[in-house]
Amino acid sequence: MARLTPLRTKPASSAARVLDDWYVAARSDELRRAPLARTLLGLPIALYRGEDGVAGALLDRCPHRNVPLSAGRVEGRHLECGYHGWQFDRGGACRAIPGLCDGAAAGAKGRHVHAYPTREQDGFVWVYLPADQQPVAEGALPEPLREPFRFPHVDDPRYVTVRQTIDMRGTLHAAAENALDVPHTAFLHRGLFRGTGDRNEIDVEVRRWHDRVEAEYFGEPRPEGLIGRVLAPRGGTVEHVDRFLLPCIAQVEYRLGESHVVASTALTPIRDHETRLFGAVSFRLPFVPPRLGDAVARALVPLGMTILKQDARMLAKQTATIETFGGEQFVSTELDVLGPHILRLLRQAERGRAVPVEAPVVETTRMQV
Amino acid sequence: MARLTPLRTKPASSAARVLDDWYVAARSDELRRAPLARTLLGLPIALYRGEDGVAGALLDRCPHRNVPLSAGRVEGRHLECGYHGWQFDRGGACRAIPGLCDGAAAGAKGRHVHAYPTREQDGFVWVYLPADQQPVAEGALPEPLREPFRFPHVDDPRYVTVRQTIDMRGTLHAAAENALDVPHTAFLHRGLFRGTGDRNEIDVEVRRWHDRVEAEYFGEPRPEGLIGRVLAPRGGTVEHVDRFLLPCIAQVEYRLGESHVVASTALTPIRDHETRLFGAVSFRLPFVPPRLGDAVARALVPLGMTILKQDARMLAKQTATIETFGGEQFVSTELDVLGPHILRLLRQAERGRAVPVEAPVVETTRMQV
Amino acid sequence: MARLTPLRTKPASSAARVLDDWYVAARSDELRRAPLARTLLGLPIALYRGEDGVAGALLDRCPHRNVPLSAGRVEGRHLECGYHGWQFDRGGACRAIPGLCDGAAAGAKGRHVHAYPTREQDGFVWVYLPADQQPVAEGALPEPLREPFRFPHVDDPRYVTVRQTIDMRGTLHAAAENALDVPHTAFLHRGLFRGTGDRNEIDVEVRRWHDRVEAEYFGEPRPEGLIGRVLAPRGGTVEHVDRFLLPCIAQVEYRLGESHVVASTALTPIRDHETRLFGAVSFRLPFVPPRLGDAVARALVPLGMTILKQDARMLAKQTATIETFGGEQFVSTELDVLGPHILRLLRQAERGRAVPVEAPVVETTRMQV
Repeated sequence: MARLTPLRTKPASSAARVLDDWYVAARSDELRRAPLARTLLGLPIALYRGEDGVAGALLDRCPHRNVPLSAGRVEGRHLECGYHGWQFDRGGACRAIPGLCDGAAAGAKGRHVHAYPTREQDGFVWVYLPADQQPVAEGALPEPLREPFRFPHVDDPRYVTVRQTIDMRGTLHAAAENALDVPHTAFLHRGLFRGTGDRNEIDVEVRRWHDRVEAEYFGEPRPEGLIGRVLAPRGGTVEHVDRFLLPCIAQVEYRLGESHVVASTALTPIRDHETRLFGAVSFRLPFVPPRLGDAVARALVPLGMTILKQDARMLAKQTATIETFGGEQFVSTELDVLGPHILRLLRQAERGRAVPVEAPVVETTRMQV
Repeated sequence: MARLTPLRTKPASSAARVLDDWYVAARSDELRRAPLARTLLGLPIALYRGEDGVAGALLDRCPHRNVPLSAGRVEGRHLECGYHGWQFDRGGACRAIPGLCDGAAAGAKGRHVHAYPTREQDGFVWVYLPADQQPVAEGALPEPLREPFRFPHVDDPRYVTVRQTIDMRGTLHAAAENALDVPHTAFLHRGLFRGTGDRNEIDVEVRRWHDRVEAEYFGEPRPEGLIGRVLAPRGGTVEHVDRFLLPCIAQVEYRLGESHVVASTALTPIRDHETRLFGAVSFRLPFVPPRLGDAVARALVPLGMTILKQDARMLAKQTATIETFGGEQFVSTELDVLGPHILRLLRQAERGRAVPVEAPVVETTRMQV
Repeated sequence: MARLTPLRTKPASSAARVLDDWYVAARSDELRRAPLARTLLGLPIALYRGEDGVAGALLDRCPHRNVPLSAGRVEGRHLECGYHGWQFDRGGACRAIPGLCDGAAAGAKGRHVHAYPTREQDGFVWVYLPADQQPVAEGALPEPLREPFRFPHVDDPRYVTVRQTIDMRGTLHAAAENALDVPHTAFLHRGLFRGTGDRNEIDVEVRRWHDRVEAEYFGEPRPEGLIGRVLAPRGGTVEHVDRFLLPCIAQVEYRLGESHVVASTALTPIRDHETRLFGAVSFRLPFVPPRLGDAVARALVPLGMTILKQDARMLAKQTATIETFGGEQFVSTELDVLGPHILRLLRQAERGRAVPVEAPVVETTRMQV
């Protein structure tokens, strides 16, 4: 039987799998004594912290009987499988098989497991996913081609930092576009963020590099909603830049006089249509006494979560609709200043990184906000 | 690995998708200020009522970022998307894109959405599904080839009408055959409807047209169960006709002296194996004083729902079994007077409507009831 | 889009479908007045007990409208469909179609249903699944090629028998290997069974026939955990044999002086990755006064269930991981004394039974327990 015509959508998808790069697997404070089962780009990872405090990331499948290593426990610097007690080090080498009369035989061929480089910085645990996975062997940990993104100002004593984590049902691209999109704020977040006052026509400059794209908004009045009033009680014209950095960073930056807010979010594709957001908002508000900074931060968290949950609900509806129709069929306008560029960056990076450029390509447009 | 032999059922299915015709999308009293997300034959529809009271039916996907329009809100005669505020009229034309400096640009090519004709009558909102869906464009609402079915007697002051809605997990065909099948009532509804007294041998005449089929039962005593006793306390021989009318109407009609009951059900395939029944039972019972008509109706609703739920449970089991075996494998007898004919009508209508006939094809059989 | 390298596992599976053999469909005490819906190797079976007490097993699909016969009721020696009242005998022949004027017509061609031989013994109801399913016809019950396994000692007055039933998400092979695997007990059941004392090096002799494989452990000290202490309070060296018998029996046998424990489990594949375990543990403990045997048995049930649930949780994780990776990728060592042999037996039996052998093939190995 034929499907009704409008359901014959081409199976287009913005899902992207950029490899040879780093993704956040966990907040540092999530990784305690028990191993964590994490999924990055569909790949099951057993994340653990050795007794020396260093994080390890192993493919979450014991080579023996294919149970998840994350269901085991940490023994010294090793992760021990919960089924038969096989132990693996952070390089994936098998170090013990209980019951074997020849103890050295644990390290025989085929008994190792894929391992992934880790970095722990700025309060997050990053894992590197190589494009070409070597055969498993002792010491076969891949060599990263680059280092992970640094979250700005999280260690700067003049700044207060708030962290938020939320899962969104949608591609990394959908979550990044949503995080950096201005026009939806007047509708989806009506009253909370924008959409309460008169509209103003402003200029937008879009700047594109080989590995990032950013949009700067000129002449934008302070956002009218509650958030604007908290951040800039006396109004004024803000400096506002939104950025996407390969493979997974969405960043929103506001300056208004001495006030400075930078919200950086690492978007981790759990799988194609499921993305976990690890966000850190760092701000400096001159009119807030330093001793009240944390209190302001705590007060803003519920509001931030309300906005993020509105976004999460909308992305879930978007993804469900795309699944029903069998693919994405987007129509963009000049208001979609970053989304199409982000998709192009992701597609290019899936095929391999582009040649670095010194100066960006610059385009301008106008919109009403 | 081979599946066991009895599981190798050919993938036969009674699912049918008759287009160029009308289906009930909602009861009128369901469609209020908020849009409704409905699915007809697998097609997601955003159903809404403009502030002028007129119903609109749009494909439930915003062309911009593919979120469901049913998650938005009504603005005047338009439906506004909840993500970026795009507005569409009842013909599917895009009427506003907030933020665009050139307001007239909203109506540019590719920004419209598929729209479907609606009718609201007899307390139901009907939607027309065309076989050939035009490309989206302003004013591209399809022209219906026919008008929807009228529910008899729902506006007749001599009749009392009761409405019931229930979802059945099964094809439109399975639900229609079930609604019009006599023999199962003695088993599935034992005691409620039939199956308590002696069996009588009766004649059945089946009459087939190009777009409908009906069975008339001659010499049938009043049903013995509770329903028969309520409707005809003094017994007697009933006139009983069961009908199926393309594409979706199952109708059961009883006359006994001055008493008259007609139960018409519009069967809406939500998707192939999920059917929503919108039923209206209109009756005139001379022995019931008019002022008690509504009380009798209210008293009968729980009994009717009990019977419908027994049917729904059985159809769900039937559908689950068919799914397990990978297809239907039915064996009919002469007792299945309507089911095979209904399937033939549906199959013919899927290929295009048959040539109208003046006189029906008539066949007779006998059964024990 | 390519999947990440480690996810490209070949679709290997230990799922096996050995036919021409018997599987336990129910415990005798489960089969009462109401029919039971059971699934054996993916095949839906309506299991019922006629009023004469004899079990019948029919394909769980009425040939008329494909509803499950298990939703019907028992009438004498027949199973009656709950939708239209068709009745079937234990051979699958249709014996009644209510409403047909010609009563004898019930038995017409195509109205019968597949039927399966049954045996009821040792407190279990067995069903025979033939490799080649005949077309349905009266009297077409297949002739079994063999008789089902007898549970030893369940009727022996010197023994106390405890029965346990549990579902495991995993193949028959995974459940059998788990039931007969020694090394995992020190990790998964740490403290309950083994894993609390020093390790000892022991000899293992593996003996293979055409239809079974067993491992005998020599010089094994009494298990250190709670179970060992209950069964052999004075310690000593146990005689310990683990066995797998085609198509579905896992058996663990311990002797220590006059004490004797034999745990036999019939593993029924509900479907490829879901296995129901019907276990009977029979034991004779000379130091327990006969009148306390049942009390000891009742006291051991919660401990046994704790162990089984630990196994069930681990097999569920194993199966989920295998599904995520798209197949099994096992690496065995000499400690896996039975698993690989069980898989070879199952694969051979899927192709047809091997030629009987008189003497087993014998191999020996050593392990630390």
